[in-house]
Amino acid sequence: MPGDPRPIGVFDSGMGGLTVLRALVVRLPRERFVYLGDTARLPYGTKSAETVQAYALQATGLLLDQGVKMLVIACNTASSVALYLLQEAWQNIPVIGVIEPGARAGVAATRNRRIAVIATEGTVRGGAYARAIRKLMADAEIVQQACQVFVALAEEGWTDSPATQAAAEHYLGPLFRGASAPDTLVLGCTHFPVLADVIRKTIGEAVALVDSAETTAQAVAEALTRAGIESGADAGGDKARFFATDSPQRFARVGAIFFGRPIDASAVELVDLRG
Amino acid sequence: MPGDPRPIGVFDSGMGGLTVLRALVVRLPRERFVYLGDTARLPYGTKSAETVQAYALQATGLLLDQGVKMLVIACNTASSVALYLLQEAWQNIPVIGVIEPGARAGVAATRNRRIAVIATEGTVRGGAYARAIRKLMADAEIVQQACQVFVALAEEGWTDSPATQAAAEHYLGPLFRGASAPDTLVLGCTHFPVLADVIRKTIGEAVALVDSAETTAQAVAEALTRAGIESGADAGGDKARFFATDSPQRFARVGAIFFGRPIDASAVELVDLRG
Repeated sequence: MPGDPRPIGVFDSGMGGLTVLRALVVRLPRERFVYLGDTARLPYGTKSAETVQAYALQATGLLLDQGVKMLVIACNTASSVALYLLQEAWQNIPVIGVIEPGARAGVAATRNRRIAVIATEGTVRGGAYARAIRKLMADAEIVQQACQVFVALAEEGWTDSPATQAAAEHYLGPLFRGASAPDTLVLGCTHFPVLADVIRKTIGEAVALVDSAETTAQAVAEALTRAGIESGADAGGDKARFFATDSPQRFARVGAIFFGRPIDASAVELVDLRG
Repeated sequence: MPGDPRPIGVFDSGMGGLTVLRALVVRLPRERFVYLGDTARLPYGTKSAETVQAYALQATGLLLDQGVKMLVIACNTASSVALYLLQEAWQNIPVIGVIEPGARAGVAATRNRRIAVIATEGTVRGGAYARAIRKLMADAEIVQQACQVFVALAEEGWTDSPATQAAAEHYLGPLFRGASAPDTLVLGCTHFPVLADVIRKTIGEAVALVDSAETTAQAVAEALTRAGIESGADAGGDKARFFATDSPQRFARVGAIFFGRPIDASAVELVDLRG
């Protein structure tokens, strides 16, 4: 059986979505991927819903032009404010976001029905995680915390520096003290998995840590099966191609932090979405 | 004498340039200002020169449409990679950047001819401060350090938090130890003046701290005189009008950190530069 050789498209505002691509490559070894990071216009997390919607529509159009068989919105902000619009726009293929899988995993993990979500300002303001969690667990107590500085710390590769520890204590210390503290923390930004060790030190071993990269990869595998889309042919060679809207050098250097392996800058194609 | 009532245009990628506007308002009390923050596309500091040039040209066009008599590029990245191009494009009015005034003040302050410059990745990579300093002091020893996390810390308003102290120690501690340490530090990003207290603690009292907001305001005053442009009529009322390319609410909230006084969100006009 030849399988469906079309690639899966993965879209993010920048390099953070590479934590999702990394999980996808592990879980779906026969698939090929095309990743687009809209690095010229990142971060989306501090931008208005209208701006993010316009950017996401334009960027995913480029992936559609690459003939993808499925689209993964590996960006919490775009998933939170633009998923529905993208599903409307690209009705021929499944469009999967990161919010619903993360919410589902959070609900599955909690015992005391108290769930904390950390994300960018835009994701928190949009409230998509809280809505997705409440849909699954109506009486859940949800605490949301914007952790904007985490994004810069992750991009700097300060995965275990004193500054990151101090920021984690500032953001998370107060949330996880006391008997009524949440027992589950959803990492609602694709940048945050690389800070998981520091976050774990701050919140303690008893709290369940939900990495939405892992849970999204699982959701993509399920959606492929559900849509009856066959796995790729796996002809060997490179699993992923990369597009960026700004400096391929920076994409390769910073991206390696999130992808967990080196990225060759000469394999990153610069594209212009400014229109 | 009626004076020249036209406003002075101030352009930045976001809110950091408000430290420059703040210094301008103090130094030139008779002038009016129009400030544009290209918040939908910030940060410029991690973007390529070509992208920043295109954005800066487009954004300053909007200020020209407001009938400004002078243009201040209150953004180190844009000054570093786009000033010459903007001076070419807008030949009818003086166009002042922040790099040359900062370099001049650094050269005036140093005694041991060792000058450190901290800035965004883009400014450091462009090397404009080093070139501007060498033009004035050919044998200066220049150390440049990109401090990308400082931008996020400043925008979060963490002007004196443990995370900011740890980041300052990480970036600046090694630079300022030993007998051959620089005696002058140029704050080569408009975000950094709000972190001056923490930076001062890290580098010690003996090092001269050059705030390019102050030095740029002085350069603007001199340029007005040089060009024979009269001061504004000072009819009272609001000294500054604000334009932003994204969320006026966030502009007002975060901008107040840099402007040093409250900004009314309803007075911030949203403009679309996406074209």
